[in-house]
Amino acid sequence: MEIFFSDDIAASSLRLPPEESAHCAKVLRRRAGDVIEVIDGEGTLYKCTIVDDNPRGVEAAIDERIPGWNSHPYHLTLAVCPTKNNDRYEWFAQKAVEFGVDCIAPVIGERSERKVFKTERIQKIALSAAKQSLKARLPQIPEPLTVKEFIKRTASGESLKLIAYCFEDETHPRQSIKEVLKAHSCQKEIIVLVGPEGDFSPQEAKEAIEAGYVPVHLGASRLRTETAGIAAAAAVYFEYL
Amino acid sequence: MEIFFSDDIAASSLRLPPEESAHCAKVLRRRAGDVIEVIDGEGTLYKCTIVDDNPRGVEAAIDERIPGWNSHPYHLTLAVCPTKNNDRYEWFAQKAVEFGVDCIAPVIGERSERKVFKTERIQKIALSAAKQSLKARLPQIPEPLTVKEFIKRTASGESLKLIAYCFEDETHPRQSIKEVLKAHSCQKEIIVLVGPEGDFSPQEAKEAIEAGYVPVHLGASRLRTETAGIAAAAAVYFEYL
Repeated sequence: MEIFFSDDIAASSLRLPPEESAHCAKVLRRRAGDVIEVIDGEGTLYKCTIVDDNPRGVEAAIDERIPGWNSHPYHLTLAVCPTKNNDRYEWFAQKAVEFGVDCIAPVIGERSERKVFKTERIQKIALSAAKQSLKARLPQIPEPLTVKEFIKRTASGESLKLIAYCFEDETHPRQSIKEVLKAHSCQKEIIVLVGPEGDFSPQEAKEAIEAGYVPVHLGASRLRTETAGIAAAAAVYFEYL
Repeated sequence: MEIFFSDDIAASSLRLPPEESAHCAKVLRRRAGDVIEVIDGEGTLYKCTIVDDNPRGVEAAIDERIPGWNSHPYHLTLAVCPTKNNDRYEWFAQKAVEFGVDCIAPVIGERSERKVFKTERIQKIALSAAKQSLKARLPQIPEPLTVKEFIKRTASGESLKLIAYCFEDETHPRQSIKEVLKAHSCQKEIIVLVGPEGDFSPQEAKEAIEAGYVPVHLGASRLRTETAGIAAAAAVYFEYL
């Protein structure tokens, strides 16, 4: 099953953007009369019939709308610090989308070595991962914030907020992410903060906890930043499986 | 914490292989008298003191042995078909080791496009991932077998055997891997079979089920082969967290 994306959707018809049109009409040789499936990136799948197989702009008539197609029963924000090596963040984003994530928020920690972030590149990866893994909704990928600013902005609100760090802190013992998710399974809005290679600073952890973040660990393994992000996505995915 | 590997361990002293010696003495500038930690790849961590910081062959006196260091309470074999793209299998292996895996068995399915497999390359990746994620035991990485041969060889034995495939089969409805792991939590010896991009053939699935494999699904997402392997590793990891 091959899914296409369109951001140009009218009441009864839609048009694929140039890249998707070329893939559809040139690479996959779909022709007028063929049935295709298209996502809008906002949660709806459209079953359509191609009316114009122009490889520069495929047009299709909408036969059926399926809102909330393949959606998951939670809203997950993964706030993960960029990794030193870009590739690692790119595959984290790809895998997070495969498991199911609603927002990938790049956050810059005090100990982050990388402070630049290619939002557009990650959006491109998220789109192809969404199509590949049959998701109709694309994750939001906001511009980077510092960890402290992200914590400030998420301080209010009803979400279940978790921060995963590696150091021990007697005054705030960490629980396993699995326990915490189970104990709060009524809260479907979840935020998980994952630090950079050098971990969060104690001050960042302190401010997170003051803002209502629950300190969690991801088990006995020492996971790389990108693996910790995937572990968080997988923990939520399996909690609601 | 930096961990080294040695396959040359005597009663009271050990020697690091050339590559590890160079990393220890040249890159990290460890000197005679420094304390280092060394794994034997078989589950034991050695706390040692360097007696000779020769970058071609570091020698250290063993101060303490810790068998079963950072071990996990299960024995997991992930039998995963090679991916078309080698990189994807390489990071699957790296992440599987980070989560905790005891055997990565490459298996060639009837629909596998890639039938060659670089065992040595994956062993190298597994070693560095083990050191990075603080594991004393390296996973076994046997030479590739066909899926059917692997099924034959695992037919007997008490392990909990799972096969994850994507198609629906009324006669053998799939359960979620989470349910099955929970229902069999007494069985600590687990094998999970994951197919190639084109999935297992119905005949492979049939032979697996006849050999005692339980058909499972990994949830609603359509996961890539390497992500399915990671999902299986994460499901077991979190079941025993």
